[in-house]
Amino acid sequence: MLEELKQEVYEANMMLPKLGIVTFTWGNVSGIDREKNLFVIKPSGVPYEDLKPSDMVVVDLEGHVVEGDMNPSSDTMTHLVLYKAFPNIKAVVHTHSKWAVSFAEAGVPIEALGTTHADTFYGDVPVTDALTKQEIEEAYEENTGKVIVRTFKEYGIDPDAVPAVLVKQHGPFTWGPSPKKAVENAKILEVVAEMNYHALQLTRADIRVPQFLLDKHYYRKHGANAYYGQNNAKSKSGVTHK
Amino acid sequence: MLEELKQEVYEANMMLPKLGIVTFTWGNVSGIDREKNLFVIKPSGVPYEDLKPSDMVVVDLEGHVVEGDMNPSSDTMTHLVLYKAFPNIKAVVHTHSKWAVSFAEAGVPIEALGTTHADTFYGDVPVTDALTKQEIEEAYEENTGKVIVRTFKEYGIDPDAVPAVLVKQHGPFTWGPSPKKAVENAKILEVVAEMNYHALQLTRADIRVPQFLLDKHYYRKHGANAYYGQNNAKSKSGVTHK
Amino acid sequence: MLEELKQEVYEANMMLPKLGIVTFTWGNVSGIDREKNLFVIKPSGVPYEDLKPSDMVVVDLEGHVVEGDMNPSSDTMTHLVLYKAFPNIKAVVHTHSKWAVSFAEAGVPIEALGTTHADTFYGDVPVTDALTKQEIEEAYEENTGKVIVRTFKEYGIDPDAVPAVLVKQHGPFTWGPSPKKAVENAKILEVVAEMNYHALQLTRADIRVPQFLLDKHYYRKHGANAYYGQNNAKSKSGVTHK
Amino acid sequence: MLEELKQEVYEANMMLPKLGIVTFTWGNVSGIDREKNLFVIKPSGVPYEDLKPSDMVVVDLEGHVVEGDMNPSSDTMTHLVLYKAFPNIKAVVHTHSKWAVSFAEAGVPIEALGTTHADTFYGDVPVTDALTKQEIEEAYEENTGKVIVRTFKEYGIDPDAVPAVLVKQHGPFTWGPSPKKAVENAKILEVVAEMNYHALQLTRADIRVPQFLLDKHYYRKHGANAYYGQNNAKSKSGVTHK
Repeated sequence: MLEELKQEVYEANMMLPKLGIVTFTWGNVSGIDREKNLFVIKPSGVPYEDLKPSDMVVVDLEGHVVEGDMNPSSDTMTHLVLYKAFPNIKAVVHTHSKWAVSFAEAGVPIEALGTTHADTFYGDVPVTDALTKQEIEEAYEENTGKVIVRTFKEYGIDPDAVPAVLVKQHGPFTWGPSPKKAVENAKILEVVAEMNYHALQLTRADIRVPQFLLDKHYYRKHGANAYYGQNNAKSKSGVTHK
Repeated sequence: MLEELKQEVYEANMMLPKLGIVTFTWGNVSGIDREKNLFVIKPSGVPYEDLKPSDMVVVDLEGHVVEGDMNPSSDTMTHLVLYKAFPNIKAVVHTHSKWAVSFAEAGVPIEALGTTHADTFYGDVPVTDALTKQEIEEAYEENTGKVIVRTFKEYGIDPDAVPAVLVKQHGPFTWGPSPKKAVENAKILEVVAEMNYHALQLTRADIRVPQFLLDKHYYRKHGANAYYGQNNAKSKSGVTHK
Repeated sequence: MLEELKQEVYEANMMLPKLGIVTFTWGNVSGIDREKNLFVIKPSGVPYEDLKPSDMVVVDLEGHVVEGDMNPSSDTMTHLVLYKAFPNIKAVVHTHSKWAVSFAEAGVPIEALGTTHADTFYGDVPVTDALTKQEIEEAYEENTGKVIVRTFKEYGIDPDAVPAVLVKQHGPFTWGPSPKKAVENAKILEVVAEMNYHALQLTRADIRVPQFLLDKHYYRKHGANAYYGQNNAKSKSGVTHK
Repeated sequence: MLEELKQEVYEANMMLPKLGIVTFTWGNVSGIDREKNLFVIKPSGVPYEDLKPSDMVVVDLEGHVVEGDMNPSSDTMTHLVLYKAFPNIKAVVHTHSKWAVSFAEAGVPIEALGTTHADTFYGDVPVTDALTKQEIEEAYEENTGKVIVRTFKEYGIDPDAVPAVLVKQHGPFTWGPSPKKAVENAKILEVVAEMNYHALQLTRADIRVPQFLLDKHYYRKHGANAYYGQNNAKSKSGVTHK
């Protein structure tokens, strides 16, 4: 069942240690088949060196395991809520990467301070509210998903344009159009968090970039007028092909 | 004598350089056989690349070497005191890992600021008092153990729930139910210290997590109701197996 | 066409991941043939592990691709402007290396605080102004080059003596007499930025080095009286050959 | 000539990149034969991957190259001055390791804040004065050695007990009883600098350790009563051999 997606999700999970954004088993990647409404996720607490594609667990959008002997990631319900609320995303990643977690613990959003940020995140990466006692005790993982969705709604942020969030007191979740892309977003968030941290220690000036810089850099890489990379018919960077 | 435990303690010692929490020979792991009341510990000052399982030294709880030609770790008496005072622990680790040492030198406890901490440490990791001149001169290593035990008693901390401490002006000790687990705790302490450091520079707000978050995350991984990982009959994360 | 230069530019591009100053595809190196007025540059968005010497794109100084099927780096026009304005340079490098970007985001120049800096950069590495809305919308990459050139003119800095700049809100560009040298300058800028960051957090004193230290260290390695390395007939460090 | 010493100095030089305390060619190690009054030093500017034992240059204490075709390290005269002034040392190391350089640039000594420091350095590692214009222009490298010697004399520091210094605006020099030991001291200085930096950001309290802690830790590893490691007849850590 979903063998191709399992392979893809497995490979994306294995990118986490390679990219240096996971310690021990503290991370998980899932990917969804939007036609079948089933998603594939890492089993809970399995070391990366032991992981196999066939270990991936298949879960439906009601939270039932439909294939796999292992317990799925304890964060499964958070992934599920995000898949339901954000209809375009096809993969979700959760890590405890160090720089992003530091911002989540401090409750400080990762503001857009430069082009490195703007290339991937079209605006600040927000921090959610802390979960309440009731939210934690009643349905912790599900409510983690809900507070993310609420944050994006309240701030009016498009989850396709800002594919990342910091859950207060916890850490980052990222997503994207594929497991690989969602993991890349997790790495980029970590790099941008590190850059922000040091920039914020170097000055007390307001150094957030203006909207027109966000527009330029984000749309250089995304959408119909993108001209970064090789998948665009014609370069629009001022260089012309004879 | 205790060949299996020696192998286990040897392997746990070898994890220290692999996890990047030791420089040169500045770390040691021991493990105890609670029935025989003997513990096995790394010899003093031997480089990790030269270490063999048969080099491990066997010591009894009166501080007598009962097997092994080499001098045991100079910190042996500290391990011994911890084994005597904390009856459930089966392994002790000491390192000079960089982030944890910085907190120990500053005399700043590693407070619980997020779920990464709460997954392993059920509350703040305390700092001991500095040893007095007399304590250092009379029985330095033994008194290092005693100040740890005193700290846990004074603050009313359960050493099984918070398996780590910072000895002021010195560095971290961790412990656990096995040598491998105790080393993992040493690595987690280091990661959490690094996260804390950066969070503390990002804000002056009080960002310690509430008790109910500690409860949720600690008991998600520990005790009868744990549902993280594969060793629990039934997932309690909201996902159901059909 | 320009096979030797392509090989050289390819090898210099491959130094970026090896030196740890690039994440994903966020960097590019070019090299110029000053007689033919053609430069060779990395194609846009191609992962380093897939890159081949034959992928390099050849561009003329009017911004026309004269050889190569791929889109050249989206930053090609910036390289072009630098080649035109700085007649002695033979290679240009752009990265998003983390420490240099943090300074660029904060708008803080990398001042000369020590001999490590002075060995390569004969004075402070400046930060440009931020690009205006009009500059970004009309010809972003070309204007990025122009703001660099303007900065060096305004401050009266010799680009051969200070082969690096920080573009505000963006990141570093470096250059040099060869692709390899320009990449080394990118790495040195990163190292010096990291040292500066920590020095600036350690003290509020004015710790910029005096001109005579800059003179000594820069000219120990550069120009007719250089005596560092093996390419000087006679050591002038006070040691004499019998 | 001095083939064994050349091999030893070569191997110590090769430890620098392995220990992560050198960038490009920015480091050098020398070792002296005290009977012959000749020292062996790395040639200037040669990349570590190209270095061979036979490249080592032999220099006498008047600063004459007595064997070797290459230019010796441009810092040769600094080594020479240290050999003459500190009669017990047998090796000298200079690097531009990042944390130590940051302290040297800031002009902040590396104070003894914990046992990691005290195990190797019996007190604070001092910073020299900055060299004057005249000192730099007349005999830069020789005067670098002289300002080190002057600093130790003025503060009354024993160079055998504190085998390290920071040259203001420049970086660290370390030394020791062998090339290997001197390189280990360079690494330890770097580790201790990093720990100090973070401890200093965590608190404004005076966290220097008391003299009796320095005494305990330094003499646990050095001198007639040392009991760390395997070269002492009898453990004095409270553990007894039956």
